[in-house]
Amino acid sequence: MDNILIIAPIVGVVALLFAFAKAKFVVSQDAGNDRMKEIASYIEDGAMAFLKREYKALTVFVIVLAIILAVGINIQTAVCFIFGAIFSVLAGYAGMKVATKANVRTANAAMKSGLGKALDVAFSGGVVMGMCVVGLGIIGISLAYKITGNVEIVTGFSLGASSIALFARVGGGIYTKAADVGADLVGKVEAGIPEDDPRNPAVIADNVGDNVGDVAGMGADLFESYVGALLSVITLGAVAYQDTGVTYGLAIAVVGIVASMVAVFFVRGDKNPQKSLNNGEYIAAGVTIIVSAILSSKMFGGYKPFVPVITGIVAGLIISKFTEYYTSADHKPVQTIANESETGHATNIISGLSVGMMSTIAPIIIIAIAIIVAFVGSGGSEDSIYGLYGIALAAVGMLSTTGMTIAVDAYGPIADNAGGIAEMCDLPEEVREITDSLDAVGNTTAAIGKGFAIGSAALTALALFVSYIEATGLTGINISKPEVIAGAFVGGMLPFAFSALTMSAVGRAASAMIDEVRRQFREIPGIMEGKAKPEYGKCVDISTTAALREMIIPGLIAVVVPVVVGLLFGAEALGGLQAGALITGVLMAIFMSNAGGAWDNAKKYIEDGNHGGKGSEAHKAAVTGDTVGDPFKDTSGPSLNILIKLITVVSLVFAPLFVQYGGILF
Amino acid sequence: MDNILIIAPIVGVVALLFAFAKAKFVVSQDAGNDRMKEIASYIEDGAMAFLKREYKALTVFVIVLAIILAVGINIQTAVCFIFGAIFSVLAGYAGMKVATKANVRTANAAMKSGLGKALDVAFSGGVVMGMCVVGLGIIGISLAYKITGNVEIVTGFSLGASSIALFARVGGGIYTKAADVGADLVGKVEAGIPEDDPRNPAVIADNVGDNVGDVAGMGADLFESYVGALLSVITLGAVAYQDTGVTYGLAIAVVGIVASMVAVFFVRGDKNPQKSLNNGEYIAAGVTIIVSAILSSKMFGGYKPFVPVITGIVAGLIISKFTEYYTSADHKPVQTIANESETGHATNIISGLSVGMMSTIAPIIIIAIAIIVAFVGSGGSEDSIYGLYGIALAAVGMLSTTGMTIAVDAYGPIADNAGGIAEMCDLPEEVREITDSLDAVGNTTAAIGKGFAIGSAALTALALFVSYIEATGLTGINISKPEVIAGAFVGGMLPFAFSALTMSAVGRAASAMIDEVRRQFREIPGIMEGKAKPEYGKCVDISTTAALREMIIPGLIAVVVPVVVGLLFGAEALGGLQAGALITGVLMAIFMSNAGGAWDNAKKYIEDGNHGGKGSEAHKAAVTGDTVGDPFKDTSGPSLNILIKLITVVSLVFAPLFVQYGGILF
Repeated sequence: MDNILIIAPIVGVVALLFAFAKAKFVVSQDAGNDRMKEIASYIEDGAMAFLKREYKALTVFVIVLAIILAVGINIQTAVCFIFGAIFSVLAGYAGMKVATKANVRTANAAMKSGLGKALDVAFSGGVVMGMCVVGLGIIGISLAYKITGNVEIVTGFSLGASSIALFARVGGGIYTKAADVGADLVGKVEAGIPEDDPRNPAVIADNVGDNVGDVAGMGADLFESYVGALLSVITLGAVAYQDTGVTYGLAIAVVGIVASMVAVFFVRGDKNPQKSLNNGEYIAAGVTIIVSAILSSKMFGGYKPFVPVITGIVAGLIISKFTEYYTSADHKPVQTIANESETGHATNIISGLSVGMMSTIAPIIIIAIAIIVAFVGSGGSEDSIYGLYGIALAAVGMLSTTGMTIAVDAYGPIADNAGGIAEMCDLPEEVREITDSLDAVGNTTAAIGKGFAIGSAALTALALFVSYIEATGLTGINISKPEVIAGAFVGGMLPFAFSALTMSAVGRAASAMIDEVRRQFREIPGIMEGKAKPEYGKCVDISTTAALREMIIPGLIAVVVPVVVGLLFGAEALGGLQAGALITGVLMAIFMSNAGGAWDNAKKYIEDGNHGGKGSEAHKAAVTGDTVGDPFKDTSGPSLNILIKLITVVSLVFAPLFVQYGGILF
Repeated sequence: MDNILIIAPIVGVVALLFAFAKAKFVVSQDAGNDRMKEIASYIEDGAMAFLKREYKALTVFVIVLAIILAVGINIQTAVCFIFGAIFSVLAGYAGMKVATKANVRTANAAMKSGLGKALDVAFSGGVVMGMCVVGLGIIGISLAYKITGNVEIVTGFSLGASSIALFARVGGGIYTKAADVGADLVGKVEAGIPEDDPRNPAVIADNVGDNVGDVAGMGADLFESYVGALLSVITLGAVAYQDTGVTYGLAIAVVGIVASMVAVFFVRGDKNPQKSLNNGEYIAAGVTIIVSAILSSKMFGGYKPFVPVITGIVAGLIISKFTEYYTSADHKPVQTIANESETGHATNIISGLSVGMMSTIAPIIIIAIAIIVAFVGSGGSEDSIYGLYGIALAAVGMLSTTGMTIAVDAYGPIADNAGGIAEMCDLPEEVREITDSLDAVGNTTAAIGKGFAIGSAALTALALFVSYIEATGLTGINISKPEVIAGAFVGGMLPFAFSALTMSAVGRAASAMIDEVRRQFREIPGIMEGKAKPEYGKCVDISTTAALREMIIPGLIAVVVPVVVGLLFGAEALGGLQAGALITGVLMAIFMSNAGGAWDNAKKYIEDGNHGGKGSEAHKAAVTGDTVGDPFKDTSGPSLNILIKLITVVSLVFAPLFVQYGGILF
């Protein structure tokens, strides 16, 4: 095992160097004319200002929680926690910094050299984010384990990653949707100016939002999953197969990182972008599968630990396919929503909600099968730990190619931003066409990425949940006990409460944005003629302040409720709470993400000339659906992924406390 | 115990006689002029035609399932099952028959004698339904137990009640909403004619829908809960305290029936209707509480079994209060939705969804507390059965005053129908005012009744779940086992799939209705001038056919999935499935029912002159919310109550099979 604890951080450093090289490549590109540089600097400054204020606010939270950990658990866990938080911040900061450099350079590349080069620049920006996440993740976990030699302490690192992730996802999600809805409703609908028009005061905030929500938020989400999966594979691997178990788990991650770096070279700008990105993903997955099989055979003399790995990878791919089916305009569900838009707003909403709910069936069945196959296939039985280790391996398998997944995912908002810059700087029509075609591909990859994020969150949370049972020494979580079923009810309710809070937060923030945009249109003379400059900064400020204020309560709920329930009702009741939150959290996340994606594409399908096209009554109904879908798919839905992981991590970290003092009331 | 098994059916017969007397009172009233009689006969004929076709279709289902039971379990269970189904049909049939007599007589009483008499007639109609449900319920369960002496066989009765209930709720829910949406969208919005206008071809179907959905569907729902709660209290009572346990459980039910009959006399037509109905409920609850305490003290020498009874009753009342808070226009949530309607359709939808999700918090916490208090308060501990008996007692307590609850609940649609008849027959303005004021009270009581139906469904399903564990001989349901958590995921998904199916069924049926109404307006000359009669029968036919066709798949899912999972993955995996379905089912039911209720009242609040009143942009947005809310609150939401109970009952009935052959795959 000593070998892997040296190899893993080294590969992590290589990933960071790889990211650094890609970042240098991006920055070395020409950023275009002065107007482009100016607009780009607004976006970059806005995004960085938000991150800085967010991190500042989180410092207080991190310090307080670190003190609680130092007192309640021990100092090492508190230190690990701080490092986890810092690493998460670093990954988000670096990824976003490069993304805000890549956007304008993508636009310029599209103008000067065409599609191929533009894809190159945008994808390279995404690669930086992807490699930072996996590099920092594996360095953090493997070094923390090497130094402390105690997996319980390493959970602190995971907690740090998770808590930053929650605030980043919730804050970023609120930011981006408040800006988006504000820009759309007043700019597009009321004032009748096109998307990304520089006369729209919220246009910069909207573009900033793509970065803080879709890049930084998504990165933090997968960083958390990645770290959580590694943590649980170490925990359960050590119990199941001692050093060999830990080594194999980390080796899968190492292989996945190397495979992702190799696959990056196969994403070439000179091909069809969709195909090229898909190839990248398939190559990364293929290499990982082959090497994992060989390793399993060498290390265990058989394929039992390999079964869950391939199960995780394949399950991730199948879930992604179903996500695409339910959210792409090429298939029946989205077309049904578009069709139902003809009879009005209400039928559009009903069919969107119904598509979202229906879309839970396939992923849930796949997850259920994956759990059983991973457990049984790895040689698990009721009396052995092998099956639980198998579940952790399935999570690691699914997440092994995270570097590639994030690169493909983060490329979307960069292309989107490039289009915005092209519009705002009045670049030639062809530039916008190129960025639009890149963006369209990005929308599909984003939907797939979301399906992947949910699937991996479910498996990671489950692996952490299983680690929790191991850590508490419980023989099981018996849901027929009253405090356990009561805990499960309360846990199941949390995702509903959490979604309600985040949705209404978006509503409030968007209202403030709408008022401000209306005010500027009214009070700044010459703004509509393009003679006076809108006050972009004010809109950026509104989104920033609202996001920071509104992220606090949902964030605290996720941390405080498990601790309170554990202390008052004991470790098993808290197990029930985790199970309840896990089940409804996964279901609600799939429902909301897919409904939102489907509404979005139903609107685009109509805009492509179906059912009367833009401006028709059907289109108006579809815009309503899209607006409802915005907080669904970009705020509440993705935040639930983090909620379920955070609840399990908090429970795991404080497990010793519950074992010793838990159940005051029961 | 022998005493109670004689007293209980006698009290059941008394309840039926009471119902008969009330029915005679209703029928003896004057049904008004010829036009009123004609319209009323259309509604009655439509409702009865639907019930007959529904029951005919269900005969096939009942016969097939009876054969399966006879072969797979034993003949006695199959016979009990058939009786359960027949009793459920009888309760629904009798209740609806009288409701369709009471509506026109309420309208006539309002015209001839005013508010007091109208309340009397409408409420008497509701009492018939209430007393039929509790009377047939207690007769069925106590006689089945007396004759067979075997509680396992009595589960067949409960299964019969549950399966008819599911089809009645789903079919009735689809019927009523297809007709409602069709009548509203074409009649009110497109043609601009008022609600309940006789020129609207769907107007009769709409009024029929109120009866088959809100009266027969709701009655079947509570009949199922009532029977399920009695079954579980017998099962667990016998294990905990032998005969005394069974006696006490049934005695609570007997007391509740008598108390409800007494309370009926306190609902007087000469008072404020809201207050009068509330008084009825409080008196019924108060009497039951006092007598239960005395009985507990006499039979057990203490109050341990009384604690869960009062817990159940109080929990039901508190949940109802919260339901009222979230769905009545007097409070902030509904006013917020109305306010958000000013910024358009999308913000109305977002805030409605968010209110619905938020409204899950309080009921879930109350249910969680009730579970723990009922368990611990009744002297339960991990090694004793007392706590599980306590949970069954809480369910029986909450349902003890079902007779009164149904009476108050069924009164609403009768008053609503009376208003419709007044409108269609062109009765004087004052008549409509009286029926409107009765209807407004009915809306509040309906919302409360829905909260109560959900709360009791949760407790009943939980009690049946606990009985299932007892019946299978499992020591617990350990959710950390892979097949159990996989089962819980699949179970949790069922309410989502079920809601998607029922919502899209309403969409399809409403579309067919819209086409038909448009066709009649187009093709029948003189229809708009009131010179030609619309073809009401065609619309009634469309709703009937659609409801019958669309209820099949959701209904079969609920029966087939538990059996398949139990056989393939074993009894414990099926336990996980039940727990998952229970948790998300309760959450989704609360979410959907309350969101629907809140949207409905936000629209009415705007129509009362707020935010621009009728015809304003805010009103249009609110109509969208109301239309989305219709299938939420009247089809999908309430059907989930039945789904969760049916899944547990199916599991319980087939439990012996799973114990013997279960887990083929695992």
